[in-house]
Amino acid sequence: MTTKVRKRDYELDAFVAALGDVPVETDPKIIHRKSRDFFWFSPVLKRQLQDRLADIVVAPRDEADVMHAASAAARHRVPVTIRGGGTGNYGQCVPVQGGVVLDVSALNAIEWQKGALLRVGAGRKMHLIDAETRKQGYELRMHPSTKRMASIGGFAAGGSAGAGSVTYGGMRELGNITGARVISLEENPRTFELKGDAALKICHGWGTTGIITALEMPLAPAFDWIDFIVSFDDFMTAVRFGYELTLADGVVKKLVTPIAWPVPTYFPSMEQYFPKGRAAVVAMIAEHSIEPFVSLAAAQNGVITYRRPTDESMGARPLYELTWNHTTLHALNVDRDITYLQALYPAFGFMEKVEEIQSLFSPEELLQHFEFTRYAGQPTAYGLALIKYTTDERLNEIMDIHQRHGVFIADPHIWMLEDSAGYKSAGADLMGFKREVDPLGICNPGKMRTYVPLR
Amino acid sequence: MTTKVRKRDYELDAFVAALGDVPVETDPKIIHRKSRDFFWFSPVLKRQLQDRLADIVVAPRDEADVMHAASAAARHRVPVTIRGGGTGNYGQCVPVQGGVVLDVSALNAIEWQKGALLRVGAGRKMHLIDAETRKQGYELRMHPSTKRMASIGGFAAGGSAGAGSVTYGGMRELGNITGARVISLEENPRTFELKGDAALKICHGWGTTGIITALEMPLAPAFDWIDFIVSFDDFMTAVRFGYELTLADGVVKKLVTPIAWPVPTYFPSMEQYFPKGRAAVVAMIAEHSIEPFVSLAAAQNGVITYRRPTDESMGARPLYELTWNHTTLHALNVDRDITYLQALYPAFGFMEKVEEIQSLFSPEELLQHFEFTRYAGQPTAYGLALIKYTTDERLNEIMDIHQRHGVFIADPHIWMLEDSAGYKSAGADLMGFKREVDPLGICNPGKMRTYVPLR
Repeated sequence: MTTKVRKRDYELDAFVAALGDVPVETDPKIIHRKSRDFFWFSPVLKRQLQDRLADIVVAPRDEADVMHAASAAARHRVPVTIRGGGTGNYGQCVPVQGGVVLDVSALNAIEWQKGALLRVGAGRKMHLIDAETRKQGYELRMHPSTKRMASIGGFAAGGSAGAGSVTYGGMRELGNITGARVISLEENPRTFELKGDAALKICHGWGTTGIITALEMPLAPAFDWIDFIVSFDDFMTAVRFGYELTLADGVVKKLVTPIAWPVPTYFPSMEQYFPKGRAAVVAMIAEHSIEPFVSLAAAQNGVITYRRPTDESMGARPLYELTWNHTTLHALNVDRDITYLQALYPAFGFMEKVEEIQSLFSPEELLQHFEFTRYAGQPTAYGLALIKYTTDERLNEIMDIHQRHGVFIADPHIWMLEDSAGYKSAGADLMGFKREVDPLGICNPGKMRTYVPLR
Repeated sequence: MTTKVRKRDYELDAFVAALGDVPVETDPKIIHRKSRDFFWFSPVLKRQLQDRLADIVVAPRDEADVMHAASAAARHRVPVTIRGGGTGNYGQCVPVQGGVVLDVSALNAIEWQKGALLRVGAGRKMHLIDAETRKQGYELRMHPSTKRMASIGGFAAGGSAGAGSVTYGGMRELGNITGARVISLEENPRTFELKGDAALKICHGWGTTGIITALEMPLAPAFDWIDFIVSFDDFMTAVRFGYELTLADGVVKKLVTPIAWPVPTYFPSMEQYFPKGRAAVVAMIAEHSIEPFVSLAAAQNGVITYRRPTDESMGARPLYELTWNHTTLHALNVDRDITYLQALYPAFGFMEKVEEIQSLFSPEELLQHFEFTRYAGQPTAYGLALIKYTTDERLNEIMDIHQRHGVFIADPHIWMLEDSAGYKSAGADLMGFKREVDPLGICNPGKMRTYVPLR
């Protein structure tokens, strides 16, 4: 079953002429590449989205270019899909109605840093933010496993959590974003400076609520992080250790990821660090917290097989690139039939629920890894299990079983904002703000089925 | 009912002679002052402990003096009660069998600081630690409300939590103390360098397990803290706000204290900031988190009545000195019939439990304030309610009612370690270690009723 979406009619040549000197790309290879994100992690989305292409890529050099492009798009009623690194998983960056892909990568300046507060262009890649802010002793509070590819604007608009969430919760927790600058898609584009709570209006809106050009956010102290792999006899012991580590408020950490065998077989270059048949926990620990971390691992008979400073330089492998949704990426490199879940476990009775869910599936079908996090202030974990895909029906059944057992599913096999868990929680705000910034319904159109353009 | 404790027999003159040039104090006023802590917060302890005095105060200048004094005490079988600032609440510093009070205040050097790791003499006052470590951007993870009087050794040995615990949990959480140097009370005193988990052996031992001379601990990033008072319509709204703030992992805070009316009537100098009849929350917020804090307060119709940087300079009043057990101190200055509770509320169903307990007592008898904290990794709060004391029987009944309703009580009206909640959790370790460092049973003797000296 594919979802039908009509392409919009508009005059491409007239639109391009109206762009003036704003740079465009017409090379079909580039258009193809920039019309995609990681939606193909889902066999369902792959089928539905793989043929959707932009007509042209527009690459503004600065905010003046963005205003110019937004005005031209409004005048010519051209669909505009905004992208940065394009590392989303739900087709957020796929131009389902064709039109323009607006690549904001050049809006990448650090506008200012005042101690722990930062204002940065939406297009800046996250590892290049840290590279700069660490000079003053600060870094991003959290980042996805795609930190070295993804831009901060896309993470705010389409991501939700990652390394660092075990301390700060998700991106949408109050206080993790403090400001956003947004440009409307109108003949005379307006700029909006959202502050405080209001800035959350752009969170998880998948770029349907105007063009984010800059973000303000608080930073975390930049510690020296040490990457660890600890090997355990069995998966439940690894989860227990991960949970205890998460609860240990005296141990400063950024990443806690228990991984069941045979998931490590999808990391061929790391084979020596994952003893065959055993579970593991991948973790990032502040250097000054190593001692209690090591003692906690020893208490569960954990064997440390890898220990070295997190290294994000070219050619190096920071361990967070084995976790969160990078796990799925590595698995798909080996086995094309793999997909994944996004399951949020309850904070109360966490360990019992893990045991319960593990008992319901064969380890050949559901290959578990947990990403510990705080959620609404409570310590818990996302289960980002890899699934050996057979049919859409079975995939839906697996998700249903989770829900029936009290595990919350954020379905990663949908591309309508209304079907996403994130949207439900911020619905009214998002919709009201969309009316302001996208009266014509040309901003990433086709992703919000309940939105009716004003004009 | 008072507990009988015999005074030890020993030759004071011979002991003093054996001390050589180690400084001693024999002024009765000083002996009286240094034989006391804040045990008189409890009418029960006041009755039992107010007449217990040391025979002499010994004030070592350095660790060599400590070794010398420990040896002399062992040879002459002199009871030794160790003290620093003497701000404990359970008579930890009261020499119940007489003998020596050993004042380790002069062991106050910062031995080294390596980034977020510190090694410091046990006698150093906590505000004088921060004064130094803040130069490198770090500060203590937590401190009691007596920060400006209390020494770090006493907080580790006899305290448990304070400002900062809302982020890092209690002092005894794994990772909050990473090392301790301890000297035994023997004719030939030995030094013990406890590392990692082992360092927890001295936690909450009330100075019964040897003489702590230095501690190693990780520090927190030193943010610019802002003191706030927010006024609310009613106490449950204040508690709800405090809980939401505690759960808001994106908001960096150090102190969250909801206070019921009429508790603020005990802060006469602060009258203008606590509108009559209304509840309040006292908080310390990192400057870069003010915006989300203010918006969260507004959502509960909170009115900000006080906002200025935390000021610990002489003559200034940092707001943490209205919270934790300082609340009791202020109340006792006005009303001698006040005492207090230490009640740990359950993390799961927290708000419901608060409501339930509030309904069981008259607001004239139980005057509530909560101190939000993490405990074993979960966000919750201590209820440090002020109690209008009538009889021991009623006081015990009030504590029993809490326990029967699932609220854990750490009884602050006892002075036997075995009766304290902290001891139960670390009992075996503490007892085993005491055998090592105090074979003669002269280290703060009379506080551990189950301990039988080896010789």
